[in-house]
This record gives sequence, structure tokens and C-alpha cells, in this order.
Amino acid sequence: MNLPRGFRYSATFAGIRKVMKDDLALIVSDTRAVASAVFTQNRVVAGPVEVARKNVRAARGRMRGILVNAGNANCATRTSLQVAMETSRAAAKAIGAKSEEVLPASTGVIGVELDARLILDALPGLVAGLSPDRFEDAARAIMTTDLTMKTAYAQVKSARIAGMTKGSGMIHPRMATTLAFVTTDAVMAPEALRTALKRACEKTFNRISVDGDTSTNDTLAVLANGASGVRPPVTVFEAALTEVLESLAKQIVKDGEGAKKLVTIDVEGATSERAAEKIARSIANSPLVKTAIAGSDPNWGRILSAAGNAGIAFDPRRVDIDFQGVAVCREGVAADFSEEELKKKLDEPECSVKFTIRGRGRGRARFWTCDFTEQYIRINASYRT
Amino acid sequence: MNLPRGFRYSATFAGIRKVMKDDLALIVSDTRAVASAVFTQNRVVAGPVEVARKNVRAARGRMRGILVNAGNANCATRTSLQVAMETSRAAAKAIGAKSEEVLPASTGVIGVELDARLILDALPGLVAGLSPDRFEDAARAIMTTDLTMKTAYAQVKSARIAGMTKGSGMIHPRMATTLAFVTTDAVMAPEALRTALKRACEKTFNRISVDGDTSTNDTLAVLANGASGVRPPVTVFEAALTEVLESLAKQIVKDGEGAKKLVTIDVEGATSERAAEKIARSIANSPLVKTAIAGSDPNWGRILSAAGNAGIAFDPRRVDIDFQGVAVCREGVAADFSEEELKKKLDEPECSVKFTIRGRGRGRARFWTCDFTEQYIRINASYRT
Repeated sequence: MNLPRGFRYSATFAGIRKVMKDDLALIVSDTRAVASAVFTQNRVVAGPVEVARKNVRAARGRMRGILVNAGNANCATRTSLQVAMETSRAAAKAIGAKSEEVLPASTGVIGVELDARLILDALPGLVAGLSPDRFEDAARAIMTTDLTMKTAYAQVKSARIAGMTKGSGMIHPRMATTLAFVTTDAVMAPEALRTALKRACEKTFNRISVDGDTSTNDTLAVLANGASGVRPPVTVFEAALTEVLESLAKQIVKDGEGAKKLVTIDVEGATSERAAEKIARSIANSPLVKTAIAGSDPNWGRILSAAGNAGIAFDPRRVDIDFQGVAVCREGVAADFSEEELKKKLDEPECSVKFTIRGRGRGRARFWTCDFTEQYIRINASYRT
Repeated sequence: MNLPRGFRYSATFAGIRKVMKDDLALIVSDTRAVASAVFTQNRVVAGPVEVARKNVRAARGRMRGILVNAGNANCATRTSLQVAMETSRAAAKAIGAKSEEVLPASTGVIGVELDARLILDALPGLVAGLSPDRFEDAARAIMTTDLTMKTAYAQVKSARIAGMTKGSGMIHPRMATTLAFVTTDAVMAPEALRTALKRACEKTFNRISVDGDTSTNDTLAVLANGASGVRPPVTVFEAALTEVLESLAKQIVKDGEGAKKLVTIDVEGATSERAAEKIARSIANSPLVKTAIAGSDPNWGRILSAAGNAGIAFDPRRVDIDFQGVAVCREGVAADFSEEELKKKLDEPECSVKFTIRGRGRGRARFWTCDFTEQYIRINASYRT
């Protein structure tokens, strides 16, 4: 794995989470990097998200680093903003950057005060530990209920892209956050990076769902420091970035709370991409579809009904549905298929749903979700301890 | 229990469902009754819903009866429309009504052909069995995975209202339907009945959720035959109808698949009733909130985050949350409360969430949902047999 040049990473245990496992990570670019980020659309926004937005603006999109903690979302508390400001400023100072050049991010329980002192005390050790090789240490430090570390890599000519993410659901039991950070040594103009991120995110992180919610802390940030000297065409960079983000997004869904199966949903023939996406999202968020898949039940009527709830007009008599590659519905009514055989196929760890509207519509969208198992309930109903 | 005068009811086993339990019901008004009905907003609409809409229009809102079967939704099949038309017409003939004067409704599995012959053969016995006393027989015949029969009654002066419903979720495992039928002997003008139904439904059946979906067959119909000779003021009738529908709607939520707790959500201080309703709906549909309640977890951060996902602008710093009567959040941050004591209170079979936005907003809404348990998954993941 070839990491982008000119970046260093570190992680440490600051005492924020209750188990003794790294909970604080720092990502540093040796020089100012062109930065672009997208944030949660929830109306309730954590302090670090507000500060991150403000900092990126104040630094005119040129950032030196990212400071991220797990174990506490630093959200809906009295000191939320102040803690995010104070700790990101201290981190900036410790790496010799301007105070607004570090982007803060947090993940963990909502509504519990985060003690800034824990982070401030850990900073010297964190900075001392910075190393070009510790990408995976940082990726592990941001995990919460994740069962697996989630990283992805790509190359554009000799420029490199490395991404890490955390999340075991769009929402977490007590750890309500999806975070993702991408470093690249490609030379990217700010506007080009913003466009590439927005477009890549739209087709990847905005197309996954574990339980249909958006957290208060979601943050996806890219730092491009240009250290490779390679200036790839924007479309080429966007394709590579999309590849990295798609891999990360799918890793989140695969590790969805209680999930046993990755489900890919393709919608075709809608009047627009937006319409296709809405139908796909409605299928992906239907508890009935997701429980049917958990039970390997070829219940295509639930898929049709969920699509009908998307708020998008279509003629059900022109709908074809393929479930795990098997034609189950043609022109809105049952196709001739063996339920027993399909049931067996649905026991596989990956599952596909294809929803096609016959006609001239060119709108298509792909969406990923996971099945919905008893384990999800078990994880989320447990009392916080 | 005083039933409205001038109605008769019947139920029989027609062989539509696999277990030998009544699956066909008939409701008949001795004279033409003013009829009003609301139907599913799903884009995929079952044949009986299309025919019901058409018949009510063709009969200019004067109907003689309702024919309803359980065990098959008569939806997404080749013969759906034809079966609904043929059977409702035959029922009309059998009771001496015009062919469009019977409203058909179905509930059950989607995508499986319904054999009209089963219903046609059962009709003579069904009609012979009509009796003013068999209201509950009909209410039992429309049950699917329901654990309890659901009826409610009210009186306006000497006019009576009787309602029945079925549903164990807005969606069902294989029985994707909520149905509700109300008879009354009040004298009601068509327009007044329509208005009362619409307004009552908006605050009751449109304010419940088990899993956030809408089925392909949902039907709620009221027949007012005027047999009491009492013409109540519209507002008085609307209040009584609302009382009946609220009782029925809450019975559905209480009997929600796998549910152990009835949850009442009140939102106050929003900019409009519509905004309040959207926030309440978002809280009610959040799997995280519902699993927390199943686990008696006083996790109010999930309530705040779910509210933030409603797409309604509000200032989180002006939000108060009361959970089971306990102040858990004041002005967007944690209030001082005992988690252990609240946890015990949350073990009760009814649970309340109050979400208040401080300020001058007058928008308020009440919403009902149930908790989300492992049993829900177990019911819905089981292979259709």
C-alpha cells in the first residue's frame, strides 16, 4: 500500500472512551493542503462540525490537519463549541500551523460534556508520535462499534489517495457518527477538489443506509497537499476518489450493526437520476424489505410496495423486479420462478435487487444497504453502560 | 355496546386464508348510506382500492355495503381489478343493491392471484348470515397477524358510531394492510361527512406508525345511514368520530408487530402544526429511538438527533425534552436527572416523549408509535409458508 507523500499520522489513548483503546487521532499535512469537506445535514449539529465549517472558510480551504476523537460526540453540551475550538487551536499550535488550519471532528455519545483537558494533555504525546506510516493507527483510533477497520486506496498516475472511515450504521447506538478522511498528494485546485468530492460523495456516501438516519457529527474531509507534483485531469481524479469512497461506504454497510448481508439496489428507467435514487432509497430503508432479506424470503411484493412509497410517480404495470439475479416480477405481476431455489440463493452474503421501469426513462441509481437482523435490535436496545 | 341502527354484519370462511378462520366479511346498511373513504397514498395501489374509489364516485357517495376479505391483498396480480369488480358487483346483487353500491377491500399477501370463485361461492352463506349483532364477527374476520380484535364505539346524543380496524403495523409481514370501517346512524350530509372523516383521520390514523411504511391496500371508510334520525352538529360528530378513530389507531400501535410499549409523542412550539407533525413523525420512525425505548434506555440524544432529521428548521438550543414525564434535556443540553430512576419508569407499558421548542411557535402535534423489539424482526424475517 502506497500512502500519499507529505502526510503524517498519529493516535493515542486520551482517556475519552471507557475502554483503554486509542481514542484520539491526528492527521497532518507537512505543507498546507487544499481541503474540502462535506458535513451532516441534520439540523442538530455538533460543535466540532460548526468549528470545522468555520475553520475551512477562515483558512480559505487551505488546511494543515485533522484532529478527531472517538468516545464522545461533543454534541448537545454546554461547552461543545468551546471544546472544539480550544482543542483544534491547541493542535494547530502544536504542529506550527495557524489556529484555523486544523479541522476538528468527534464521534461518540451525545449530550455528555467532553473534558477538553483530556485532549490538551494528550496533545504533546500525539504530536510526538506523528509518522508517515501510522495511517492505520489513526484509522483504528476513530472506530467505535465498528467490528473492522475501514481503509481504501487508489492511485492516479503516480499520485496517491488514501481514505479511512468509521461507522457501523448511518447512526450508531451511542456513537452517532460516520466520519471519513481522505489524504492525497495529487495537485488539486480548490474548486476542482470541491466538485470532485461533491460528485463522488453523492454516488457513494449519500447512497448508503443502515437505518435511514443521519447523525449530528457526520464529516467527510479530503486533504490534497500536491506533494506528488502530479496534476491529474479532474475527471480522472474524481473517478479514483469515487473508487476510494465507494469502497469505504460499502465497508460501512457490510459492517452495519447486526448485518449479515450487503445489499446492492439498482433502479433503472426512472424519469431522472433523482427519481431513481428516491426509489432506491425507499427500498433500502424499508424494514420489511430488509427483514425479508435477513430471512432469505423472496417476498418481492415488499420491494414493489416500498418503491410505491418513494413519492415518485410510476406505473406499477411497467415494473420488472430481479431479486438475486432471478426474475421475480414482470410488468407488475409475479414471474414464474422457484421460491425454494431463490431462497437458497438469498442465503449468500451479498444480495442484489434490480428494479426496472420499462420505457424511455434514463434515470438510474445504485444504492447499498444491509439486512436487518435481531442483532441490530440487541445492539441498540442495550442500556448505555 | 349500542350499535348503530339499520346495519347488519356477517362473516364466513371462504377458504382464502390457509387456516380455517373467517376470512370474508360483509357490512350492509339497510338503506343507502352516505359514504366517505380515504385510501392509501402508495403509488402501488391494489385493485380493490381502485374499484372502491370508482364505485364511491359512481354511486355519488351513497353506498349500501362493504365486502372485505383477509388472506390475500388482491394486489400486483393479473386479475386484481377484475376480481375486485366481479366480487363487489356480485355482493351488491345479493343484497339487492346497484352494482356500484358495494365497496371492496382486501388484505393479505401481495402478488398472489385471488380466486374470485372462492368469494362468489361463499356469498350466499355470507348474505344469509347477516345480522345486526354480528359486528364483532366481522371485526374478527378481517384480522391477519393481529393478536387482538380492534373495535371502538361512541355516541352523539342518541346517534351511535361503531368502528372496527385491523393492522399490526402500518405494514404487515405478508398482510400489507390497515383497514378500518365505521358505521353510524347519524344523519350526515355527504360534504360534512367527508370533512369530518378527513380531519379526524389526519389526527389519528395519519399519526401512527409501526415501521414507517404505507401499504398498497389501506382503506378507511365510514357509512352514515341516518337511521337514528339525529343530525348532530358537524363539530360534535367530528369529535365523536375522532374519539373512535383515535381509539382504533392506538389499538393498532399497541398491537404493533413485536411491540411491548405504546409510545405517545407530543411536539409543541413548532412554527406550524405541519412542522410539529413532521418532527413527531421523524422521532416516531427512528429505529434508534424505538430500540432505546424497547431497552428502557433514557438516551434522549437519539430523540434530539431524530428531530434534527425531520427537515424542519429549529434552534436546538431552545429545545426541551421530557421523557416519561422526566426533564432530560433543557435548552438543548442534558438536564439533571437520575438515569436509574428513569430507566425503571421506562419499563412501563406506556411511554411518553414531549419535545418542546421554546418561543412563540404555536404548532403542536401528537403522534403514536410502538417500541422496536427483536420480535419484530423475528416475525418479519420468517419465510412465507
